[in-house]
Amino acid sequence: MVATGSKCRTCKAPAIIDLPRHNAKFCAEHFQELCRRQVAKAIEHWKMIEPGDRILVAVSGGKDSLAVWDLLHELGHAADGLYIGLGIGDYSDTSAVYARDFATARGLKLIEVSLREEYGYDIPTAARATRRVPCSSCGLSKRHLFDKAALDGGYDVVVTGHNLDDEAAVLFGNTLRWDIEYLARQLPVLPARDGLPRKVKPLVRLSERETAAWCVVRGIDYMVEECPMAEGNRHLAYKAALNAVERDSPGTKAAFYLNFVERMVPLLADVRAETVASVGTCSRCGSPTTGEVCAFCRLVDKASAHERVPVELIARRHR
Amino acid sequence: MVATGSKCRTCKAPAIIDLPRHNAKFCAEHFQELCRRQVAKAIEHWKMIEPGDRILVAVSGGKDSLAVWDLLHELGHAADGLYIGLGIGDYSDTSAVYARDFATARGLKLIEVSLREEYGYDIPTAARATRRVPCSSCGLSKRHLFDKAALDGGYDVVVTGHNLDDEAAVLFGNTLRWDIEYLARQLPVLPARDGLPRKVKPLVRLSERETAAWCVVRGIDYMVEECPMAEGNRHLAYKAALNAVERDSPGTKAAFYLNFVERMVPLLADVRAETVASVGTCSRCGSPTTGEVCAFCRLVDKASAHERVPVELIARRHR
Repeated sequence: MVATGSKCRTCKAPAIIDLPRHNAKFCAEHFQELCRRQVAKAIEHWKMIEPGDRILVAVSGGKDSLAVWDLLHELGHAADGLYIGLGIGDYSDTSAVYARDFATARGLKLIEVSLREEYGYDIPTAARATRRVPCSSCGLSKRHLFDKAALDGGYDVVVTGHNLDDEAAVLFGNTLRWDIEYLARQLPVLPARDGLPRKVKPLVRLSERETAAWCVVRGIDYMVEECPMAEGNRHLAYKAALNAVERDSPGTKAAFYLNFVERMVPLLADVRAETVASVGTCSRCGSPTTGEVCAFCRLVDKASAHERVPVELIARRHR
Repeated sequence: MVATGSKCRTCKAPAIIDLPRHNAKFCAEHFQELCRRQVAKAIEHWKMIEPGDRILVAVSGGKDSLAVWDLLHELGHAADGLYIGLGIGDYSDTSAVYARDFATARGLKLIEVSLREEYGYDIPTAARATRRVPCSSCGLSKRHLFDKAALDGGYDVVVTGHNLDDEAAVLFGNTLRWDIEYLARQLPVLPARDGLPRKVKPLVRLSERETAAWCVVRGIDYMVEECPMAEGNRHLAYKAALNAVERDSPGTKAAFYLNFVERMVPLLADVRAETVASVGTCSRCGSPTTGEVCAFCRLVDKASAHERVPVELIARRHR
């Protein structure tokens, strides 16, 4: 991760990581300090957390969600976790173990929801039933269940582990299509509305490599494998394209995302207001929707009626 | 360029080019028809040329400027050419020959301006004198001299050969920085104002590969080498990143540029109006400027006072 003999910018001890974007190298201690500072800065600048907020972290068992849960506690923000069993074969079974082990070791509360047990479907089956890429029904299911769990449990804010690379890649995709409505809503904080919790992304100032390094220096075991169903998705191609530009000009990715939020988001306020104004309520579950029945309830109908599909069938199709 | 045995989509004759973005292959005749149609569509849709307009084409001797000059005549738009001698060593000497040969063979009028003879500097010297990348003073000089030549010669419109790849790469750069003022002005047509001519880019619906193929099938000899001073510039890195995404999803680049113009440009109207409103007039040459003296007059002062710098010195520095 760093050339032999490199020294920490802060204390001159041997460095363990080189961060070209910050034009600096750090020892384990001062790398952690940098991470804490970046996360505290994001939380403060975008008013992500108010005093007294009850916080729920969306936990997948991967590096980002465990890092953000850990960092919240480091910064004095007590938070419970929510793990959703997506039914993606061994991948889901193993990631659940990482999430549980992390919670148990730290005495934290982890709520668990199983798609199969509680809603009668899993992601491979949903992908087949909807004939769409698995990421589509996965994202939809997670968003709905995070909101519902927050509502049911009286949480004010849902925290997700989206890092800078995630946000920059999504932004790149939305920008390649100039999908104005998606762009208008791509914020580090989505305010609470209609009984829905606030949603915040405290890791947007840390890169993927930095959240992985955080877990390493903190001794956090996490699920290293990518989701087998995400292989070959465009998100990964967008990350690769941005990484190529970042290699030539360190800092490009952070500027891309942060300048967007600073300069472009204000210009999209009208688009955002229109999007929110056109939303009604699902006649089944009460969630915000533009139709009569929300997309999640329609997904449950379709996917739970479908014969169970093993993960291998879908993962292979998308490889 | 195309697999053996492939057939033209239109006439089933052997194809000479495969265009994944159009999901089709074409023979030489119907490829030309496609190019003419795309350029006619751009000219019409964005009202680039009005009946009776006097047209001046910015000619570099490369594929794009010769292709656009040729295509304008194919579509019945008579146009004169303007070649600017930038003083970039052999590169400039050779490209001038291509421009002159093209004009002579077709009996077209080519106006020539020499930076060194008429303004006392060249691009390598300007780069050294300003201590900036050569592309910076080159772009500034060309923009100013195109405007001036159009004004002096009574032309209504200046045509440049920017193709889809050029525009998409510039857009990508402006987007990576979210440079809102640059984004607001990145249009296929810049309307005339303050005595400045309209500026139009009829090739924005054709890719770099397509303009090169146009020259090949039309038997147009052009300067193939890239400018020796542009090597390693970011524009090329942006093109590479977009090409990587385009390979995975043909049509991404066209959607990126065309959706920007369609969906984003209207949202930036206020920014554009502010930019134009804040412009005054250069006390030396009368050009639009936000300062007392325009950037071109300041460049002439600085670069013409500097000792002449050979191209090899600058090109080597930027390699």
